[in-house]
Amino acid sequence: METNTINITEKFKLFSDHWSPKVIAEMNDYQFKLAKVEGEFVWHAHEESDETCIIIDGELTIEFRDKSVHLKKGEMCVVPKGVEHKPVAKSECQIMLIEPKGIVNTGDAGVEKTAENDVWI
Amino acid sequence: METNTINITEKFKLFSDHWSPKVIAEMNDYQFKLAKVEGEFVWHAHEESDETCIIIDGELTIEFRDKSVHLKKGEMCVVPKGVEHKPVAKSECQIMLIEPKGIVNTGDAGVEKTAENDVWI
Repeated sequence: METNTINITEKFKLFSDHWSPKVIAEMNDYQFKLAKVEGEFVWHAHEESDETCIIIDGELTIEFRDKSVHLKKGEMCVVPKGVEHKPVAKSECQIMLIEPKGIVNTGDAGVEKTAENDVWI
Repeated sequence: METNTINITEKFKLFSDHWSPKVIAEMNDYQFKLAKVEGEFVWHAHEESDETCIIIDGELTIEFRDKSVHLKKGEMCVVPKGVEHKPVAKSECQIMLIEPKGIVNTGDAGVEKTAENDVWI
């Protein structure tokens, strides 16, 4: 039984690399991950699952093929499974991702930005 | 395809009742719910699922049978399935709950504080 307090701000101090989600908690077969992002990511989709993104600090634009969603601190968005998207952050942005364990950050786009999965901090 | 921006602060302005979670988003078969809580809740457990609680504003103590976890703004805790707990907030606290759709707020303790389920705002 693990019921410890997880401090999101403190967890963000533990890493500095971009586009490399770190797991901070598990709920059933889902994981909570933190990431620092800056610049343009790659177009990708997660064929097996929706993906939730909560902005902890900064601003993030999620580009879809037919529109863009601009998110600021305290805002969130659920990207439906199978939907192509590309996150873009003009300056460093801190995000929390919630999705099933095993989801790879680049989804169907196996590229250089694919981060190691299931890295805990 | 729903990919709208969800502003957590704005959603909290839409209700004032306590211990009555409101759904703001769905991810696969999971829901994100907001609740305002104040005072003592009832001892209960969710036999079917873990439950995640993120403190959006204020402070919350989650009492377990063997310890207490005190949570402040920006902190979170995963309550494992089947574990008895009782949330207590000295003053009003705003929380986000993440759990599978269908989970009832009072879990196995069917009592007066059981809120209507699946209420969206």
